[in-house]
Amino acid sequence: MPALSGTTIGFIGLGLMGRPMALHLHRAGATVVVCNRSQTVVDALVAQGLQAAATPREVAARTDTVILMLPDTPSVETVLFGADGVLAGLRPGALVIDMGTTAVLATREFGRRVREAGGDYLDAPVSGGQVGAEEATLTIMVGGSDAAVVRARPLLAVLGSRLTHVGELGAGQVAKAANQVIVGLTIGAVAEGLALAQRAGVDPVRVREALVGGFAASRILELHGERMVSGRFAPGGRATVQHKDMSQALELAQALGLELPATALNRELYARLIALGEGGLDHSALYRLITGAAGTPAEGAGR
Amino acid sequence: MPALSGTTIGFIGLGLMGRPMALHLHRAGATVVVCNRSQTVVDALVAQGLQAAATPREVAARTDTVILMLPDTPSVETVLFGADGVLAGLRPGALVIDMGTTAVLATREFGRRVREAGGDYLDAPVSGGQVGAEEATLTIMVGGSDAAVVRARPLLAVLGSRLTHVGELGAGQVAKAANQVIVGLTIGAVAEGLALAQRAGVDPVRVREALVGGFAASRILELHGERMVSGRFAPGGRATVQHKDMSQALELAQALGLELPATALNRELYARLIALGEGGLDHSALYRLITGAAGTPAEGAGR
Repeated sequence: MPALSGTTIGFIGLGLMGRPMALHLHRAGATVVVCNRSQTVVDALVAQGLQAAATPREVAARTDTVILMLPDTPSVETVLFGADGVLAGLRPGALVIDMGTTAVLATREFGRRVREAGGDYLDAPVSGGQVGAEEATLTIMVGGSDAAVVRARPLLAVLGSRLTHVGELGAGQVAKAANQVIVGLTIGAVAEGLALAQRAGVDPVRVREALVGGFAASRILELHGERMVSGRFAPGGRATVQHKDMSQALELAQALGLELPATALNRELYARLIALGEGGLDHSALYRLITGAAGTPAEGAGR
Repeated sequence: MPALSGTTIGFIGLGLMGRPMALHLHRAGATVVVCNRSQTVVDALVAQGLQAAATPREVAARTDTVILMLPDTPSVETVLFGADGVLAGLRPGALVIDMGTTAVLATREFGRRVREAGGDYLDAPVSGGQVGAEEATLTIMVGGSDAAVVRARPLLAVLGSRLTHVGELGAGQVAKAANQVIVGLTIGAVAEGLALAQRAGVDPVRVREALVGGFAASRILELHGERMVSGRFAPGGRATVQHKDMSQALELAQALGLELPATALNRELYARLIALGEGGLDHSALYRLITGAAGTPAEGAGR
């Protein structure tokens, strides 16, 4: 019997990540009910056997678990608490799982309100991007109660290859914020290191090779470093999104009274890159800002 | 027959790295001639079968290859060109290999002068620290001519597990500078990410675990991240050395007209850590600066 036979799952937010995730749940045997702003996307999924609902309220009324995969915090708020939102249709004891990247303090507030309304709540943001969603190899960082995590584990296991229960409500979003800070700053690290080599007249391809085995080794040096030395900056993860993530992390830090000087500088560097018209490139294009190439035509393919 | 039978190698600079390296060459069958400022160290090595010389000049006069493993650029200059220096005793066609971390522009100049005197020159700085030197698992980044690299390869293979011929004279030092920039900035990245988690009331141990499988994965997150979350800051690589490395990289960048804003900030953060009296701790202690713990008594062991 498929892993999720007999379960009903609502899925709201059918973007590049959400679509393959909803399909994985359907293929694992769940009854998946979807709704989305664009009806074309819904129609395509209905053709593959998923069920359509008109509103988030209707999705919630027909399912025991509702997954959100939305682009930002205001969207989550509207889908949950707006007219015809999830809360208006929430079944008693239903579990809401927010898998998008949402602000930490808002997440704690949203969870509290859903619990007050008789449901339960998990934040379960992911790392791994579109490819991870398609291949069901996402890294999932979960915040919430033990009971809710136990309940969600079978369906999260269908979507990702690695799940960490980080802590209470909001802890998943805290881990995701830390992840984004480290990713953005490590891209900046690799960009400055390789730019120094290039300006000194040494082939950055060779330097990257020399460094891969040592203390400087990272997934970023491997993947984003390769993009830098080959000049392939088609996204991937966009510079604009990295900038937004750094802003969100800095807002959290500020609310906590914590100074993050390198993160603040990194956000400013991304802002400069965007101001030069390169926000649509992959976040590894920070290399173009450091080498002075940003704002000039990109070499090679990949724009 | 041992790999280096019949070869004569001079070794100057017998610190924590140099001592085990000289011993590895001896055990591989080379006749190794050493000299050092501290005679105690020389005596200990002579007891193990190595040969002593009184001056760098004498080392050079008795060997075909001279390896330098010295703490800084001025020491290299003195050992090469001072009275009783290597150049004064250099055999025709002898190869000088600088395996320390030396400034790039000085390296190019030193190599030129050794070549003019009838020798050849390689810069071959390493990554991997004392443990890498002891276990002969160093990563070696080499700059110089193909012919010199071919000649040096058998003896470098005794010292390290990974050798990359990066480019012409100085290219090894450029790669090392890039390495140090990336290491320092990645430590800063992990420090700010984990500090954010800690301040948000989430266990940084769990956050680090959640992140190890994703895009934020790095040797630094693995090794130095572990030091941060467990509070073990006995060096390892000292904060004062990281500060010096960042300064050296910034001097090179400035000479090339390249701005490295994150590296400049990182140097300043290390300067603040040192000013708070923590320069003797491991470079991962940058975490203590970001969390606000620097300058207060360190928790747990490891001071």
